[in-house]
Amino acid sequence: MNEEAHGYISSKDDYLKRLRRIEGQARGLQRMVEDDKYCIDILTQVSAMTKALQSVALGLLDDHLNHCVVRAAAAGGPEADIKIQEASEAIARLVRS
Amino acid sequence: MNEEAHGYISSKDDYLKRLRRIEGQARGLQRMVEDDKYCIDILTQVSAMTKALQSVALGLLDDHLNHCVVRAAAAGGPEADIKIQEASEAIARLVRS
Amino acid sequence: MNEEAHGYISSKDDYLKRLRRIEGQARGLQRMVEDDKYCIDILTQVSAMTKALQSVALGLLDDHLNHCVVRAAAAGGPEADIKIQEASEAIARLVRS
Amino acid sequence: MNEEAHGYISSKDDYLKRLRRIEGQARGLQRMVEDDKYCIDILTQVSAMTKALQSVALGLLDDHLNHCVVRAAAAGGPEADIKIQEASEAIARLVRS
Repeated sequence: MNEEAHGYISSKDDYLKRLRRIEGQARGLQRMVEDDKYCIDILTQVSAMTKALQSVALGLLDDHLNHCVVRAAAAGGPEADIKIQEASEAIARLVRS
Repeated sequence: MNEEAHGYISSKDDYLKRLRRIEGQARGLQRMVEDDKYCIDILTQVSAMTKALQSVALGLLDDHLNHCVVRAAAAGGPEADIKIQEASEAIARLVRS
Repeated sequence: MNEEAHGYISSKDDYLKRLRRIEGQARGLQRMVEDDKYCIDILTQVSAMTKALQSVALGLLDDHLNHCVVRAAAAGGPEADIKIQEASEAIARLVRS
Repeated sequence: MNEEAHGYISSKDDYLKRLRRIEGQARGLQRMVEDDKYCIDILTQVSAMTKALQSVALGLLDDHLNHCVVRAAAAGGPEADIKIQEASEAIARLVRS
């Protein structure tokens, strides 16, 4: 892992496992719709999937702050400002989605 | 489509198409992680996927209110109360997720 | 309480009490900013206030479904469709805010 | 403004103005409930108030990242880790509220 690597690199396998599970949830939802399952039960699964996705996002963001942002802030200069602005915009998108 | 069919039945194909696209987004996220893409770009995709999922949920809920809930309310009795309570709980889960 | 009364009427005092508490939280936040409190502590209070507000919204919505929507659905006709559409739009605004 | 001042200090007046407006929205909601306004109209105001509150939170968080977190990261050491963890937890509370 080099100096410039992204924050999530060290837990790449963990993220891939969680995203594969989320992909499985998307397939499970299709089966529920195909099998005419009850709307409320489908909605419960959609909420669970949304939570799982949100949790991946919060993990990625934490890794990003801990690595890319801290590194840029320590180095100083305009790069730090850019990284903070990017992070703030990403946070706003998450809070509003 | 019978009397008792779920609200989303008439747009089943549309929901399946949207869920397949969401499944594709989950696979796309795995590729981004595997290819060491920039954290912020991954987060942007996660927000897009969350919005798509939320939109499916709002559609299902609207169909549910329009069909199952209206039918139960028209019939009256305890079934109506149960349906409304179920719907309220599903809404709370969506708002809080 | 007449036939046409809104759903929340029977618990009006409870809603007023909760909204007064929320108003108090808004004043508390102003004091925190005036006293230069630590940003993270202010954010914790903002999250608490947002949750309190969300909980009022979910309560109002539940009352609305249980009264206005059920009454309109039982009566049938175009009024029921309008009520459901209004409710769906209100739910979408809550989920997205 | 000293070195250690919180990030939001320079825009304290702006935050106070926004929080006073939010306090006014809380009072407006009480009037609506007292006057038996239509539930859906109350919910629309609740959504507007939630958005205003969320926007204050995102502003405070951005200021915090730009000042407290950047300063701690530049200084290095355990303080930086603590600041990032605090910020991540605040973000998680916002995303989940």
